[in-house]
Amino acid sequence: MKSKTSQIVVLRLGHRKERDKRISTHVALVARAFGASKIIFSGEYDKSLLKSVQKVTQIWGGEFEISYEKNWKKWMQNFAGIKVHLTMYGVNFKERLSEIKKLSETKDIAIIIGSEKVPKEVYKLADYNLAIGNQPHSEVSALAIFLYELNERKIPESFQNAKLKIIPQEKGKKIMKLLNA
Amino acid sequence: MKSKTSQIVVLRLGHRKERDKRISTHVALVARAFGASKIIFSGEYDKSLLKSVQKVTQIWGGEFEISYEKNWKKWMQNFAGIKVHLTMYGVNFKERLSEIKKLSETKDIAIIIGSEKVPKEVYKLADYNLAIGNQPHSEVSALAIFLYELNERKIPESFQNAKLKIIPQEKGKKIMKLLNA
Repeated sequence: MKSKTSQIVVLRLGHRKERDKRISTHVALVARAFGASKIIFSGEYDKSLLKSVQKVTQIWGGEFEISYEKNWKKWMQNFAGIKVHLTMYGVNFKERLSEIKKLSETKDIAIIIGSEKVPKEVYKLADYNLAIGNQPHSEVSALAIFLYELNERKIPESFQNAKLKIIPQEKGKKIMKLLNA
Repeated sequence: MKSKTSQIVVLRLGHRKERDKRISTHVALVARAFGASKIIFSGEYDKSLLKSVQKVTQIWGGEFEISYEKNWKKWMQNFAGIKVHLTMYGVNFKERLSEIKKLSETKDIAIIIGSEKVPKEVYKLADYNLAIGNQPHSEVSALAIFLYELNERKIPESFQNAKLKIIPQEKGKKIMKLLNA
């Protein structure tokens, strides 16, 4: 039996330790901040990437998971939910959004994000190949817009067990330490 | 006399040639793809960054401008429109969005995006310090969401004088060469 609340998982393909370090970190932070529950990295194994994202979760809270998967193809084949590949070559995401939202009520969603060169099989294994516009921009922005729309344009505000919390300011910064977290 | 159509300009602060190369490129591509007409870089001068973004515009079309400005403070002081600084420490952007949209009908908008450490003066010089959620994510996603909402969730589809155009596909890639561009 499926759990009542379905999950959103992000699969980031083809990570390259040197070149993608910061972009991949931003992808992971976007996944967490916009409501995904997990990110899986493929490509080169990068312990420092995993650690830096875990550290963010320790400080800012939540249950966000991060892991590494060498065999992304097998992972995609075995994933039981809906596989959405974000690509500038795909169909406009707005044409499929309501359909996917409906499916997400009962099924988990995997959002697949490539890096420089995405293997052909990804397009075939995906249930949807969707474009956030057909212009070049960024996997970071594509993921953000898709998650934002998938979650009804709500951005999670509070995460459980956070050690730090920002108090929004008109000017300047205010950070609160949550001592009993 | 102001022109009828106001413009959106992005100011990217504190670019570091080595460390920010790719993130800054993504910021520029997001600015272009989501409807800004110009990006201005400050921080370290980076000719290759400027060139790589210009190349994208040559291929994919449009009138997107990119330039470098050493003195960002003076630039902000002299900017005649509305200055919106995106920061995780700011007020939730949704609380000010309709106000800014209204202002953007007659005034230019500058969206200011920092990198690692943003000087205090930026918060003071900005008319608005706005957060796309108060969790850490990315200047790339913050800019994308803000531009997306500012432009009524419309993503520009076609750019004039493009040499390449993508034909959206359910599976795979299709790129059209526009020979008479």
